[in-house]
Amino acid sequence: MQDASRIIQTAHEMADAARHAILPLFRSTDLVADNKRPADFDPVTQADRAAELAMREVLARLRPDDAILGEEYGSTAGTSGLTWILDPIDGTRAFISGATSWGVLIGLSDGQDVIYGMIDQPYTGERFEGGLGRAQLAGPHGTRDLQVRRDVPLERATLMTTFPEVGTTAEGASFRRVAAKAQLTRYGLDCYAYGLLALGQIDLVIEAGLQSYDIAGPLAVVQAAGGIVTDWQGGPAAQGGQVIAAATPELHRAAMALLAG
Amino acid sequence: MQDASRIIQTAHEMADAARHAILPLFRSTDLVADNKRPADFDPVTQADRAAELAMREVLARLRPDDAILGEEYGSTAGTSGLTWILDPIDGTRAFISGATSWGVLIGLSDGQDVIYGMIDQPYTGERFEGGLGRAQLAGPHGTRDLQVRRDVPLERATLMTTFPEVGTTAEGASFRRVAAKAQLTRYGLDCYAYGLLALGQIDLVIEAGLQSYDIAGPLAVVQAAGGIVTDWQGGPAAQGGQVIAAATPELHRAAMALLAG
Repeated sequence: MQDASRIIQTAHEMADAARHAILPLFRSTDLVADNKRPADFDPVTQADRAAELAMREVLARLRPDDAILGEEYGSTAGTSGLTWILDPIDGTRAFISGATSWGVLIGLSDGQDVIYGMIDQPYTGERFEGGLGRAQLAGPHGTRDLQVRRDVPLERATLMTTFPEVGTTAEGASFRRVAAKAQLTRYGLDCYAYGLLALGQIDLVIEAGLQSYDIAGPLAVVQAAGGIVTDWQGGPAAQGGQVIAAATPELHRAAMALLAG
Repeated sequence: MQDASRIIQTAHEMADAARHAILPLFRSTDLVADNKRPADFDPVTQADRAAELAMREVLARLRPDDAILGEEYGSTAGTSGLTWILDPIDGTRAFISGATSWGVLIGLSDGQDVIYGMIDQPYTGERFEGGLGRAQLAGPHGTRDLQVRRDVPLERATLMTTFPEVGTTAEGASFRRVAAKAQLTRYGLDCYAYGLLALGQIDLVIEAGLQSYDIAGPLAVVQAAGGIVTDWQGGPAAQGGQVIAAATPELHRAAMALLAG
């Protein structure tokens, strides 16, 4: 793509703007967690909204012809064929708890595939990115190539998901069939889990009930690191729903078989 | 205590030495996770051992009369009446997964109470400390006083624990009675959860099956921030076992009543 470097530069400006909007509110006593869906407590904060507005301002200035799909402010039409998919804070529950597993998610779709993505953690200063020739983590400890690890069988694998119940009762039961075979299962990592998979630290992430903006950025990062991201049936994952991200084809196959029952 | 400043300086030197020993191994492909107890996968790594040796070396140099109790190398007698209680890496499962909720734990007991403690996160650079007149978090975003938050009733509280099963089947059932009343329950934070409690970000941490070295440092940090740390019956928590840490007396009482059934 001829303007890959301009796209990447735009994404970094967007992530910088989101950091600037969010960090003063993280762990602030001023933060007010509204309650978007009282039934299951999905807090949305000023920080989410401020960060998405800040990213949209960068796009309006640098790439006004691209479309936008954002968690907080919905769809904005474009003419370029490219769509930026934004989750200003993935993991608002972690955010309002002061934990650092939340992230700013940026994905770029060409209408067919997610061709570039970013997972940014403003507090730790870690920025995972993948696509358009890039696969790297940059942060306070330097820059490192992203590469999934190989040759870990399921019985030695580390599996992550965000909520122990995973999704519906049936989805939870499917997940537990995989967890029962894995060596280690960890919870509560939100989007950061996909970064750890891309870094070669863990082997599988399995989630359910995702939205497209939850997975677009992570999908591009994991794929750029050599991993596989699909839905639980092996189809495209970019629309969200049930998602499995695996380091290798072998793990992907083994986990999908267990998910299917 | 007359030598409070020397004690604090020693603890910081110990934590610095542990960081130096651990960081080259964190997220390293050279890390080999041994398996101390194959039945339930309790990995111990070179990093744990190197970090405890590094902290013991500081004590041998600066405070040779103090006793030591460390997770990896056991007890060393002393003559001063003070005992350093060390967990070189609390949260080795998080560590070998690349997550950042693990920490170096340092506690100092005068034989009666834990009078000072530290939770250090080498990768994020965050250092929580409490006791001997201190209650602070120092890190890349500056230094901040630790203070638990007040006036949050249980139905608006955030609760954390490390493993969803918590401990035994009965302990898990007790925990879930509290979780059912809390607004938000999060898993997988290890010792970092006590830091978030001391920071006023969450309200309760409830765990079971702890060792003394798992809780000594966190206990001092939470108490210095104004919180309460006991066992599930309201007795001393410094020996580990079932531990509840609460921001306020009201939350402590409400959670203890639910734990008791």
